[in-house]
Amino acid sequence: MKSLADQAIVWQDNHLVLLDQRKLPKDVQYIHCQNVNDVIHAIKNMVVRGAPAIGVTAAYGVVLAARVRYQESKSNWQQDIEQDLSELLCARPTAVNLRWAIEKMRQEIVKSGSEDPENTLLTVAKKIHHEDVQANKTLGDLGANLLSKGSAVLTHCNAGALATGGYGTALGVIRSAYAENKITAIYADETRPWFQGTRLTAWELLQDSIPVTLICDSAAASLMRQKKLAWVIVGADRVASNGDVANKIGTYSLAVMAREHGVNFMVAAPSSTIDMHMRSGDDIEIEERAHNEVTHVQNESISPEQVQVWNPVFDITPAEYVSALVTEKGVVKLPNRSKIEDLMKSK
Amino acid sequence: MKSLADQAIVWQDNHLVLLDQRKLPKDVQYIHCQNVNDVIHAIKNMVVRGAPAIGVTAAYGVVLAARVRYQESKSNWQQDIEQDLSELLCARPTAVNLRWAIEKMRQEIVKSGSEDPENTLLTVAKKIHHEDVQANKTLGDLGANLLSKGSAVLTHCNAGALATGGYGTALGVIRSAYAENKITAIYADETRPWFQGTRLTAWELLQDSIPVTLICDSAAASLMRQKKLAWVIVGADRVASNGDVANKIGTYSLAVMAREHGVNFMVAAPSSTIDMHMRSGDDIEIEERAHNEVTHVQNESISPEQVQVWNPVFDITPAEYVSALVTEKGVVKLPNRSKIEDLMKSK
Repeated sequence: MKSLADQAIVWQDNHLVLLDQRKLPKDVQYIHCQNVNDVIHAIKNMVVRGAPAIGVTAAYGVVLAARVRYQESKSNWQQDIEQDLSELLCARPTAVNLRWAIEKMRQEIVKSGSEDPENTLLTVAKKIHHEDVQANKTLGDLGANLLSKGSAVLTHCNAGALATGGYGTALGVIRSAYAENKITAIYADETRPWFQGTRLTAWELLQDSIPVTLICDSAAASLMRQKKLAWVIVGADRVASNGDVANKIGTYSLAVMAREHGVNFMVAAPSSTIDMHMRSGDDIEIEERAHNEVTHVQNESISPEQVQVWNPVFDITPAEYVSALVTEKGVVKLPNRSKIEDLMKSK
Repeated sequence: MKSLADQAIVWQDNHLVLLDQRKLPKDVQYIHCQNVNDVIHAIKNMVVRGAPAIGVTAAYGVVLAARVRYQESKSNWQQDIEQDLSELLCARPTAVNLRWAIEKMRQEIVKSGSEDPENTLLTVAKKIHHEDVQANKTLGDLGANLLSKGSAVLTHCNAGALATGGYGTALGVIRSAYAENKITAIYADETRPWFQGTRLTAWELLQDSIPVTLICDSAAASLMRQKKLAWVIVGADRVASNGDVANKIGTYSLAVMAREHGVNFMVAAPSSTIDMHMRSGDDIEIEERAHNEVTHVQNESISPEQVQVWNPVFDITPAEYVSALVTEKGVVKLPNRSKIEDLMKSK
């Protein structure tokens, strides 16, 4: 049976149902998206988050957009829907899978004739969703192969089933390795400011009865110094063509600390996360989110009123810190531009 | 006029009044300690925190203990009070100033005769308090001398007036440098799990109309990579005789990141924080506090129930990462054992 985390994005009764990740772990509630604006709103407000999950969600959003645009004008819907695609694209700036999924859907739209496109587009969206899960299972196994028996691992943010179509990227690797009895301990950074580690990763792993120990983000360095940590395993929101990685704020710090302590650093992501248009991480736009994500907790202020805030929610880890980039197409050790070009050319 | 932060520890109407730092910045409330148990409770539960502040508070606690013990037995109070001193000593394990202050008070107790010791002990406690403030002003100026004009600085936790007898150590340096117009921007880590940066440092600086920008702990590495940061300036809970520094969890990570980015790393602490009995940081006991500091915020759970937690609240920064140790006795650049021995021998 699928876990709740594996059913976070479901097409049901002709609309999109999303597990509201803002309410976890306290409440398991769902948001019903009946049109593309509902989907844009859900992505912007982090009902759903995580680069691959955003991509899958957007694909279903395009189906909902097409339904309305086709009803409005059977002859002009392919032009009219462009506005919806643009708005979807701008919902979050850093995750490249959003653009990737919308492009896939656009290719189908361009091919469409004057017939009702909904079923065809839905089939493509479901294929994107299904292939993401399959990619995660494949890369999960590939990543697990890199771990030796008896490994303690640390992950950051949530790169699990909740952040993807299912199974997860970083948590996919951890799931596969745990199933192979290779893992002795799983540590999860709490991941400020949104507490994805506390609220999502811990919840998701415990749902599958996988034990997990939570630490404050700033305790990761002590963890590496004191405990025997074999791997830091994270996901990615975008990987540049030179191997630089955009991921949740705090990832860069972990990568530097990992190298300092001789701990391996793995980035697990589907190839749809690799953006060959970006020559380096310096070109990737880093989203800055609202100050109250830092100044408030549980909707209550914990800070003095006049305080200023800098709240970048992603950072760039230069490729030189990455021990292995693990994708469904294969593993790239010590990634660089030429190795990534070769990977992307492979079938 | 003294700021509220400079009046966080006050002897008034024959008892000790402490600003309740757990309630800041929302409420300015005071706890009245009438006996040593009230003081122990206040230290354990972080009504007052910060190594030098704990030392000053404990000194006043000894006065309250002596009052009761002397009333109970004029002949045996000097023996009886030892139990109170032991309990005070165990209230928090990592801060060395606690032991240092209790030792100072014990020396006075040993010298006492059969007369009521309260006034004499109170005079010593007030001297400890006053000398801490003076030390901070001295080391604040010495630290500020190290900064060039136009410096952006980052601090961690709260090493301010609230953490000391007054003026602060790291914030003492920042106050002095700010007054000299040397500082262009002050960043404060929020400092999980207790949010000392958000709740205390931001509040304390804004009380003095000093602008401050809050960041998540995990954004410090990005800050160093993107913004021009000249110094990281932190306090210390204990400095070993080789220069290793115990301070708030997250300090070690900042020190490593600072070296990686060519940012200077300053530890500002009174010489009472230097523990010549500790040969290295490995010997310093690191306090682990309750899991609910991580799993709960504002008394409400944000995590799944079965999750495990590792919550060390201090870490060790090896001396090799420290650019300068700044004390009231002088500045030690690139501290090591022999330089620290020389410092401690100086007047």
